[in-house]
This record gives sequence, C-alpha cells and structure tokens, in this order.
Amino acid sequence: MVQGGLICPAGPGCYHYLPSAVRAMEKLVGLIDREMRAIGGQKLNMPSLSPAELWRASGRWDQMGRELFRLADRHGKDYCLGPTHEEAVTDLVAAQTNLSYRQLPLRLYQVTRKFRDEPKPRFGLLRSREFYMKDMYTFDASEEAAHRTYSLVCDAYRRVFEALGLRFVQVQADTGSIGGTVSHEFQLPADIGEDRLVLCPTGHFAANVETISAEQTTCPTCGEPLTPTRGIEVGHTFYLGTKYSSVFNATFYSAENKLQLAEMGCYGLGVTRILAAAIEVLSTEDSIRWPSLIAPYQVCFIPPKKGSKEEKGAVLMEHLYDDLAEAVPQLAGDSVLDDRTQLTIGKRLKDANKLGYPYVIIAGKRVCDDPPVFEVWSQNTGEVMFLTREGVIELLSKVRVP
Amino acid sequence: MVQGGLICPAGPGCYHYLPSAVRAMEKLVGLIDREMRAIGGQKLNMPSLSPAELWRASGRWDQMGRELFRLADRHGKDYCLGPTHEEAVTDLVAAQTNLSYRQLPLRLYQVTRKFRDEPKPRFGLLRSREFYMKDMYTFDASEEAAHRTYSLVCDAYRRVFEALGLRFVQVQADTGSIGGTVSHEFQLPADIGEDRLVLCPTGHFAANVETISAEQTTCPTCGEPLTPTRGIEVGHTFYLGTKYSSVFNATFYSAENKLQLAEMGCYGLGVTRILAAAIEVLSTEDSIRWPSLIAPYQVCFIPPKKGSKEEKGAVLMEHLYDDLAEAVPQLAGDSVLDDRTQLTIGKRLKDANKLGYPYVIIAGKRVCDDPPVFEVWSQNTGEVMFLTREGVIELLSKVRVP
Repeated sequence: MVQGGLICPAGPGCYHYLPSAVRAMEKLVGLIDREMRAIGGQKLNMPSLSPAELWRASGRWDQMGRELFRLADRHGKDYCLGPTHEEAVTDLVAAQTNLSYRQLPLRLYQVTRKFRDEPKPRFGLLRSREFYMKDMYTFDASEEAAHRTYSLVCDAYRRVFEALGLRFVQVQADTGSIGGTVSHEFQLPADIGEDRLVLCPTGHFAANVETISAEQTTCPTCGEPLTPTRGIEVGHTFYLGTKYSSVFNATFYSAENKLQLAEMGCYGLGVTRILAAAIEVLSTEDSIRWPSLIAPYQVCFIPPKKGSKEEKGAVLMEHLYDDLAEAVPQLAGDSVLDDRTQLTIGKRLKDANKLGYPYVIIAGKRVCDDPPVFEVWSQNTGEVMFLTREGVIELLSKVRVP
Repeated sequence: MVQGGLICPAGPGCYHYLPSAVRAMEKLVGLIDREMRAIGGQKLNMPSLSPAELWRASGRWDQMGRELFRLADRHGKDYCLGPTHEEAVTDLVAAQTNLSYRQLPLRLYQVTRKFRDEPKPRFGLLRSREFYMKDMYTFDASEEAAHRTYSLVCDAYRRVFEALGLRFVQVQADTGSIGGTVSHEFQLPADIGEDRLVLCPTGHFAANVETISAEQTTCPTCGEPLTPTRGIEVGHTFYLGTKYSSVFNATFYSAENKLQLAEMGCYGLGVTRILAAAIEVLSTEDSIRWPSLIAPYQVCFIPPKKGSKEEKGAVLMEHLYDDLAEAVPQLAGDSVLDDRTQLTIGKRLKDANKLGYPYVIIAGKRVCDDPPVFEVWSQNTGEVMFLTREGVIELLSKVRVP
C-alpha cells in the first residue's frame, strides 16, 4: 500500500486519501498550525452538520442553492453539511456573553472537512465535493484592529507558501457568497488554473479579472500593460465587517462598557487543494515532485536486483539505511527501503517517481567500487550525484523535516 | 477562549470542540497513531459521503435503519454519512487487483468524524451524533493470520488505556450490525455507563450481559460468582472473516497463485468518547481531571492579585514561568500563565479546575518568604506541596509530554 499511489476515487468527486497522501497532508497541517499559532490562532473544531436555522438567519440557505448538501435527521430537522462556517462560529462567539474588549482579538481556526455539491467535480482534489480546508474566523474590537488582523493573516499565508517554495500571487478578488468589502485570493500561476488573472509585470497590481473592468488593461500605478495569466486559487481572505456579527448579535463590552458588534474577518486555505496544486505545478511528465517540506517520505533506498552482479551491494545499502537513521534521526521515519528485490532497479525507480521522493538512492554499478559509491538522485533539481556513504549522510543531514 | 471550557452545544447531539478540547484530542490521536504504527498500521482517510450502492451491496442500507444519516446529491444519487467504513475500505482494497499474499497483512486505519443519527443523544460527547473515531480494518491471508492480527490490535488497545492510566476491562461482546464471529469491547467501569457487564472477581472472565444467558451467574473457569458492574464502551474489536470481502470480492493471490478472499477484522476506538469517559471517571465534583498524558495543558501559573500584599510575587512567578520553559522545553507550549490579576487567586483557581491542569502553581502568602516558596497543587493526586523555584523545576522536569 505504501507504493500504491496517493488517492483513489470513492464516488463522484470524492476520494480516499492513501497513506502517502495522509502523510503529506499531516505535514502540511503541521506547518499551517505553526503559522496560525504564531499569529495567536486558537484551534477549535466545529461540526459538519450545520442546523438550517443558522443559514436561514444569514440568508444563505437560499443563496447557496444547490451547492449545499442538505439533509434531515430522524426528527425532520434540516441541516446542511458545512461548506464554510461563518454562521456557526459567529453563533458560537455570540453565546459567549460578557466578552470583554480585553479578550479580543479572537482568532479561531479549524482544519476540517468541508462539503460542496460541485456541479462538475474535476481535476481530482482540485475541485472535489469533500475536501479539507483550514478556515480562520477573527473577531476584533474595531475596524482598524480588524484590518491589522487581516494583514497579519495575509502575512502568515505568504509565509506558508514561501516555506513550501511555491510561486504565488496575492490578487484582488470578488467577495462572492461570503460577502464583506475587501477580499484577496492567493493563486498559484498554472496553465490549468480555472481563474483568469491580470498582473502588473513589476508587481504593483494583481487582480482576478472578475474584479476589474474590461477597459482596465494597464497597471493603475505604473501604467505598464497588465499581463494575463491563469491561476489555481489556494487561499482566500475576506474582511467581513459586521455582516455576520450583526445577524447573530456577536457583541463585546467596549472600554466604555458599551455593547458593540465585533468586526470580523474570515480566511481560508485549501489544504487538499494545496497538495494537488503543488504537485500540478512542480511535477514533470515522468515524476511527481512535492514541496520538500511536505513530501510523504524524504528518501527512497533502492538496493540491487536479486541475482544481479551488484547483488552484494544490498548489504551495503541496508547498512547505509541504518546508519542514516542513526546519524540523522529526524529522517528515520521519513526513509523507505524498497526491498522488493525481485524487481529491477528501473521498475522500482518508476514506482518511486509516482510517489515523489526528494531523494532516491540507488545501489548501481559503482556500489562495487572501493569505497562503494551510491547514485543519489535529487528529484527536485534533476541532479544525479555519485557519493560515498559519508557523502550521502552529509548531504541528507541538511534536509529539513517539519 | 483558552479559559472558556471544553465543548459548546452546536445543535442536538453536536458539539463545538473548544481549543482546550482540541489540544487534548490531538494528544490522544498522537498516542493512538504511535500504537497503530507500532503494529504496522497505515493511516488513510476515507470520505464521509458514502455511496448508497456500497451499503445496498452489504445489506446494511436497510439493516441500519434510521441510525444512518441519508442524503441525495444534486443529481439524485443517494449517500449516507459513514458511521463506520467496512464497505468503503473493502471496496478500496478490492480495487487493488494483483494484490499478493506477500503484501498482506494490510492494516489500514483512519481517525475521522463519524455520523450516527442517535434517537436520544445524551451525556455530551459520550453519545453524540457526530464524533471522532479511530477505525482500523485489517486484511490477512488466512484465518490464523487474521487471529494473530486480532490479538495484536487488542494488545495495542490495552497499551493505549494503560498509557492513559485508565482502568479498563476487555469483555466478550455482541457483534451487532457489524457482524462477524468474535468480538470484544473495551469498557471503562463507571456508574453512569450504559452497558451492563459481569466480571469474574479474579479476572478469568468478563462479558457484556448481552452475550450470556441469564442462568450464567458464575465464572466458567473458577466457578466464583460473577460481579455485575456498568461500563462505558470506548473500544470494540470484530473478527469479520470473509463477511465483507466476499461481498466486494476483496481477493489476493496466494503462494500457489490462486485467488483467495482476504480474512478481515475491524477495530474501533471512540476518540471523543475516550476524552469524555476519561473525564467522567477521573474527575471530582469540584475539578476536572485528565489522564496526565493528554491534559490540554500541563501547568497553570497563578500570580497574586493586583494590589494584594503578595503583589511583588508576580514578578517572581513570571521568572519561574520563563525559567521552566527554558529548563524543561517540552513544557514551554504546555504551560499557561493566568495573568488576569484583576481576579482573586481563588476565582482563577476555580477556572483552572474547570479545565483540568495536572499542576497548578500559586504565588500564595509564602511567595514573600526568603527564598520564595510556591504552592504546587498536584491535581491528579490531591497533594499540595510548598516548593522553592528549584523544587518546582525539579518536580516538573519529570512530567511526560507526548
């Protein structure tokens, strides 16, 4: 099963995540958790079953139309499966009576499954009907404070994409069914992207074309012609103001002891979508590439085929595998020894390329040299190196594992 | 919000898990992950939306009755929200054609939300309609191998409860709607438990009363009268045989290259239920107690009230808080300084008891001694100690954090 791929269809637009995909996802969630904690984020967990009355109160029970999965329980009470949780979290905060301005800002987030009945699910995890999202909801005491929170979250999102080594753009965006007055998308430029963007070539301006007029063809700052491109949306931020806090009466006591509505923002990162989009933009035709930090495993060892001339290299490779685990303990759980030695090296290398290891170490012909030399394929740079045992350990001791 | 309790109702039988509960749950999941990996478990993740045809194939679409949450998508296709995943995982493994006996056993597990439309949700997380469960499904090449797997998983479950310090019994159980031929429950003895058990006083025999005849009042091994007790079910194991593999044709090639049905087992741990049950059996009327290993935070520091005689102790406590983070780095993220110094120590201690810290450190009267002495409340033993700065650090350096 470890060799068995990343996802497997489970129904239209629904996928089983296989063990390697789960490893990558847990690493990504760990990275996101750290960045969310760094800006004072507190992690909670809200149910998927979301009572219809909350959505009727906000007007979105009708507005969301057929994108909502709807169901009734045995008592006939209506629910939807939450595609997003503005209503639920605002209702939760509204229930904290006696909230004081001293307790603000609240920056609450969760990493949970979301549901959206997409008319045409496609591109695997890029547009699926059940997916993981990190959603944060913030509550501030003033508009000014809420805008500060907004910048902080955007900074954290940028750090996430930088840590992953993914080229991204932050563009002006439409607020859609979520609402609010200010919104940005984080987009990974990619030909298969469904969003059409325009960028100022010197970086002054970037927007989703939905937000600008057809006449706007030059940068409002420097006048350069805007470049059209396509992007995959992987994050979205919204300044909501009091749109939801006024509906659910989410209030706090101000310094003057007056009840005031909280100023809100909401922020999403598509967790499974980032996985899929990263593979899409980094991979080549022959091999899957991951952002190193979240690769399911860092290193794959491929010993020689049984019965080959290099067969005695198998022992040397097993020693190297054990030595590495000892010298670089953080890689111990992140290395795989593919001991299916009834298969050729070529066949196993092909399998390795389907999973995406930043490093593949092969006991090829030169494993019979004295001292033995291993082939080290650095898959993310395309380099092949010939290194002794010491050389391999030195190289891999620099690998960052989250 | 950190001080705001553990759960908050979100609808009938549905709960928001607040940040402290999420911390405890993530620690518990980490512990379970380690034990599952130790027995060769591979973590995957299956969707909640489960196509009706799978459940029709197994006969459970009708059998499960109103306990299944059912819904249709925009194209009228029927789904349920998975309460358990025998059908889905067997279908997934059946799709791996060319599976060889060499690749068995497969021990696949997930930690995900499950859904059950309980007629009467009650006791908070003990019987809720949306909850977290760890479910493992195993595939073996022979009945004998499957029984070996069954013992291994039971051993791992015992290690989980032992690590948590929870008294448990493993009892003979009914196979219910899951089916199969052998089944055990892991039960925490508790008066509020919904299950009625009988135990041999010397440990030869333990059963859920559902599985024995009314006449059986003595131990079948030693003849001692069986003691009745009540329990909270926190784990359940099933030997399934080929019940599901025969429906979905989950086969493998044997050593003789013949197609054979896989022998299955399934195993569940109620993640949120363990949290609730542990609190239930450990807590006192005045204060919540957690198994130390999964307490949301290990230590709470309570400096003196502003304006009190001991006020200058606040600085000493802040130093202690910083020194501890440096001397015992694994506690740095697990310590909370309750600097709401406008409140009395008593009020803050009460709040601390609502969350459950294994250790509460108070700057009481003797913080003015030379050298300063802190009050250390060991909440799980009920002890109160008076310790200097060095004494506190020595004591807490022994705390195990997962």
